[in-house]
Amino acid sequence: MNEQTTICSEIESCRELVWSARQAGQVGLVPTMGALHQGHLSLVSASTQQCDFTVVTVFVNPTQFSANEDLSSYPRPLQEDCRVLADLGVDLIFTPDESTMYPLGCTTVVQPPAVAAALEGSHRRTHFQGVTTIVTKLFNVAPAHVAYFGQKDYQQTLVIRRMVADLNLPIEIQVEPTIREPDGLALSSRNQYLDGEQRQQAVSLSQSLFLAQERFDEGESSATAILIDMSQHLHDRGVTDIDYVVLAHPDSLESVERVEVGTMALVAARVGTTRLIDNKRIE
Amino acid sequence: MNEQTTICSEIESCRELVWSARQAGQVGLVPTMGALHQGHLSLVSASTQQCDFTVVTVFVNPTQFSANEDLSSYPRPLQEDCRVLADLGVDLIFTPDESTMYPLGCTTVVQPPAVAAALEGSHRRTHFQGVTTIVTKLFNVAPAHVAYFGQKDYQQTLVIRRMVADLNLPIEIQVEPTIREPDGLALSSRNQYLDGEQRQQAVSLSQSLFLAQERFDEGESSATAILIDMSQHLHDRGVTDIDYVVLAHPDSLESVERVEVGTMALVAARVGTTRLIDNKRIE
Repeated sequence: MNEQTTICSEIESCRELVWSARQAGQVGLVPTMGALHQGHLSLVSASTQQCDFTVVTVFVNPTQFSANEDLSSYPRPLQEDCRVLADLGVDLIFTPDESTMYPLGCTTVVQPPAVAAALEGSHRRTHFQGVTTIVTKLFNVAPAHVAYFGQKDYQQTLVIRRMVADLNLPIEIQVEPTIREPDGLALSSRNQYLDGEQRQQAVSLSQSLFLAQERFDEGESSATAILIDMSQHLHDRGVTDIDYVVLAHPDSLESVERVEVGTMALVAARVGTTRLIDNKRIE
Repeated sequence: MNEQTTICSEIESCRELVWSARQAGQVGLVPTMGALHQGHLSLVSASTQQCDFTVVTVFVNPTQFSANEDLSSYPRPLQEDCRVLADLGVDLIFTPDESTMYPLGCTTVVQPPAVAAALEGSHRRTHFQGVTTIVTKLFNVAPAHVAYFGQKDYQQTLVIRRMVADLNLPIEIQVEPTIREPDGLALSSRNQYLDGEQRQQAVSLSQSLFLAQERFDEGESSATAILIDMSQHLHDRGVTDIDYVVLAHPDSLESVERVEVGTMALVAARVGTTRLIDNKRIE
């Protein structure tokens, strides 16, 4: 275990440590909900390589879960997470209690920008409001120069970039590529919910995205034609509880009619009771 | 004119100047909508006395006005404001354009805490949302150690203190006493809308607050009894378009039944078309 990793759970001590670190150099922040996988760790590595001081927050944020979602069962392997982060040379781990981040009477909320309304926002009504609120709070508690997010949550990166611009938050947002299993499945803390058969089905999400790229490479540019193939692929692999399969503009997330380089393919579906999302930029 | 007063209208230059100033000492911020009167200037003086560097923002924030309110007619004597601020030794005046603070596509909003719902919030539906959003933005553009607000906008001070706590904003809020005309009228940029007769009527707002104190001093502690006297006083002076006259808990703003030391008396009414507010702590 890295001797120089500090673990703290109080807002004031976190803020003071980050403020001190800012005097000495560049500070990077990786906000996580724990249950860390290689996707998170690639964000941490980007920060430790690019910054002089890296702070990782581990907090399962209740306000971004809806009532019917998996808040209570969400994995919380805190000790293991801390060990891994220490091994990676993380300088500070902030692990607040729920009552620290949301004390009684805490009712101010950051209402997310318009780009939050579609896709995830339409299927998880209060999700992004929970995200924008906690991220704003964490940016204030751990005032880093740069914060790292994964492209896996593509809409989230748009929402946060827009929020940072709209509220003039003094932080740079850096987005790192999605990390995948060898067969293509995007890493997610929720993958551990999947049983053997579901794991086989789950890979069809990423396959449908690669299929979109293939069809585009073959010369197809009709979004409708490509979406039919993507949906068909999911159905053929037993994934029928689909929230959305879309080809969308990379900034607005509005559905496109013609696919071009830069168009985003995005998919969300339930495999068993596990809700998975994935996305890919069409190249 | 103070040679050392900088006037700037760009976010990045404001932020850089304030960041530099923070390295050298304590920075105070006074957010205003201009049309400065002695109330504003007492906030500025508190900052120049207590801080090493004072930044005043002058921005008529459109999002805190409702459609039927006085946004277009709100006074904007910018040159005079800047002259007065320079004479007071203000270091930096930030006067952004509307398009600088709200560029196209800016849709993120800070939804105010629960204490915003009553009183002003119930009469000016989107007012506090506009306030919390612009204040958050200004705190990020001019990241001072301490920000000064006037007790005249008492509910606003509660809303902002709560927002600062809820979003973990790294700034201290300091509230300065209401400044009054010799006859008791609370200073307000909107007082200049009043004609001679209206000016006479307007003083009855503060008189009703002092009357509440008198009645309490005489031993009356029934809120209902005192409120009847306050309302009667307003009516007798020709102020009949009353939004509220309340005796409320100083933190929650919930109406009280028994008045005690610390109870807040608050009043809002229209004199002609001019909406005025005032408040007083019962001592």
